[in-house]
Amino acid sequence: MIKVVLLGGGNLAFHLTKNLLNNKAVNLIQVYNRSIDKIQYLKSKTAITDNLNALEAADIYVVAVADNAISEVSSKLNFKNKLVVHTSGAANLNELKSKSNKGVFYPLQTFSKENKIDFTSIPICIEAETKTDLDLLEKLAKSIAKKYYLINSEQRKHLHVAAVFVNNFVNHLYHIGNEICEENGIPFEILHPLIEKTSKKIVEIPPLKAQTGPAKRNDTKTIKNHKAILNKQQKEIYNLLTKSIQNTYGKKL
Amino acid sequence: MIKVVLLGGGNLAFHLTKNLLNNKAVNLIQVYNRSIDKIQYLKSKTAITDNLNALEAADIYVVAVADNAISEVSSKLNFKNKLVVHTSGAANLNELKSKSNKGVFYPLQTFSKENKIDFTSIPICIEAETKTDLDLLEKLAKSIAKKYYLINSEQRKHLHVAAVFVNNFVNHLYHIGNEICEENGIPFEILHPLIEKTSKKIVEIPPLKAQTGPAKRNDTKTIKNHKAILNKQQKEIYNLLTKSIQNTYGKKL
Repeated sequence: MIKVVLLGGGNLAFHLTKNLLNNKAVNLIQVYNRSIDKIQYLKSKTAITDNLNALEAADIYVVAVADNAISEVSSKLNFKNKLVVHTSGAANLNELKSKSNKGVFYPLQTFSKENKIDFTSIPICIEAETKTDLDLLEKLAKSIAKKYYLINSEQRKHLHVAAVFVNNFVNHLYHIGNEICEENGIPFEILHPLIEKTSKKIVEIPPLKAQTGPAKRNDTKTIKNHKAILNKQQKEIYNLLTKSIQNTYGKKL
Repeated sequence: MIKVVLLGGGNLAFHLTKNLLNNKAVNLIQVYNRSIDKIQYLKSKTAITDNLNALEAADIYVVAVADNAISEVSSKLNFKNKLVVHTSGAANLNELKSKSNKGVFYPLQTFSKENKIDFTSIPICIEAETKTDLDLLEKLAKSIAKKYYLINSEQRKHLHVAAVFVNNFVNHLYHIGNEICEENGIPFEILHPLIEKTSKKIVEIPPLKAQTGPAKRNDTKTIKNHKAILNKQQKEIYNLLTKSIQNTYGKKL
């Protein structure tokens, strides 16, 4: 059994705590949060604390706090010869300021408290400084998810921005689609099957090959018609993404 | 049984033909294409022709040709008192130049020949000039798909551009994500579960509420780090979409 202390009370910490409490390979011996109120609900299930000097002895300390708190929280972990990992996609391994060995345990998914999370399908990106620590993180990752990947800090930085494109920005395009529908009395649900299909297609075909539409086929008439009915912000985005698609496929506007 | 003649040999025509041949409510009596070679494979299943003056008498003529050919092909349909529909999201009802009644039968999905198409889950957008014609199109739509919608030409124009945002542009963002991964030795499949989750989320929560990420929470440090590692084209898109998200949520950069 891997002894784990988890630090944090945000969305990821919430879901991870739930998973670790039901994980047969793990003994979640303690949860820390700076505000004890937020983790009172765990009282009957494991030890809780709001005191960083009262952490129990564990194999792994999972610092699942906001990116800008990783340095501060970890700098207060004065023990040695343990493994301290953060869970952030955006933070370098070296943002950990603890005296122990450092590592990263980054589950790549979008977390919100309402949403149910099935960790088995979430890829875990791990990084460590020693083979022993990596083995330990591999064991932890395997106990939680089907797939894990060795991703170093430099790669993770790029992976994180790629995730912004395919998640945050994609969701914003969904919002624009929704907005256009609402303004014209069209139920947004008409677009749901198209959205689903588009996202599923790229699992089989690389997105470069899956591309369709007026920009790709250089259909200037349709492009002109589209621009005529968009608002300023929408048109700016339309122009730039159309240009980017045409650059990708070597066509000029 | 609805008697149908289908005109066209492209992707949509291909899939629609296949569906109509196996549709119990429809008798697909003839398929036309300007190049007979492309529809030779249908010879044993229905009548085929490359002569617009040799079309048989049917209830509905489905003009499933490229947008820029709708006017020309339909202008050669000289018969009256029938229903002639096109299948385009981008073309107005009035691009049909036939002497018969006009209508639109637009299945909203992305079609490519390789991909298997399940029409039952594709929304069909229909439009007609008379109640009788609308009833007929409703009957046809119901025989093919679970859901159909009455969408007029003005609405369809907006729906079509909304589809470009949630399909063509989204796919291009997937491509950028893939590109960033490849350049850094990261398997793109790490992002597949995130992509799937993002697309599924909006069926339950409107995209306006589902938005997460550094732009939404105004995390200037992460935004700065991201910009530092993108190429020119990627950065332009990053900047514009970040700005658009921040405008949407009333935050200033």
